[in-house]
Amino acid sequence: MGFDVAELKFNEAGLIPAIAQDADSHEVLMMAWMNADAIARTLASGRVTYWSRSRQAFWVKGESSGHHQELVDFRFDCDKDCLLVLVRQTGPACHTNRRSCFFSAVRDGAVVELMQPMA
Amino acid sequence: MGFDVAELKFNEAGLIPAIAQDADSHEVLMMAWMNADAIARTLASGRVTYWSRSRQAFWVKGESSGHHQELVDFRFDCDKDCLLVLVRQTGPACHTNRRSCFFSAVRDGAVVELMQPMA
Repeated sequence: MGFDVAELKFNEAGLIPAIAQDADSHEVLMMAWMNADAIARTLASGRVTYWSRSRQAFWVKGESSGHHQELVDFRFDCDKDCLLVLVRQTGPACHTNRRSCFFSAVRDGAVVELMQPMA
Repeated sequence: MGFDVAELKFNEAGLIPAIAQDADSHEVLMMAWMNADAIARTLASGRVTYWSRSRQAFWVKGESSGHHQELVDFRFDCDKDCLLVLVRQTGPACHTNRRSCFFSAVRDGAVVELMQPMA
């Protein structure tokens, strides 16, 4: 069955959430948003490309930081309203220089920091 | 530092996306939404509870299917606008009876089904 991006369900802003997971370690790295064009660019280039809601522009991950995400596998869920991209991540995924954006945990009512910025 | 749910960023509908990941296999199982009360219930009960947008009601995962998610760790991202819950999943996470909702991949322009419904 051919893939038609129009079958995905985008929100009222034309966006769909995309979870990035490290293809090797399986660590969940970040969640960001794509529109239909960002999906097409990601699939065509193999370089994960989001839509920046704050800048209202394409965001080729790593374009300014060098922390690229090379696409390994592109998946979508049963409801067709969420994406999962398996990636090979260069350096940290997070703008705080941590490997993953999910570095804060809630344990016994307190916030615990799970990882430090990369050297 | 104490955790204050009010520090999280909810969207205009009062919701925040929550990614569920298997704590053991690290498989990404599903993405659904929580509101502040669903977060409080999840943390207090240890049973992952979403907010169903279609039913406009709390959705204690597995309440009707028996496919519970036991909370192992509750995390949030650098922007405080996305959650990651590590869970112990009973049976399939997906309503199609597959282990994960992300069973469809796009490879060479075609949709490939990666897993079958569980027996």
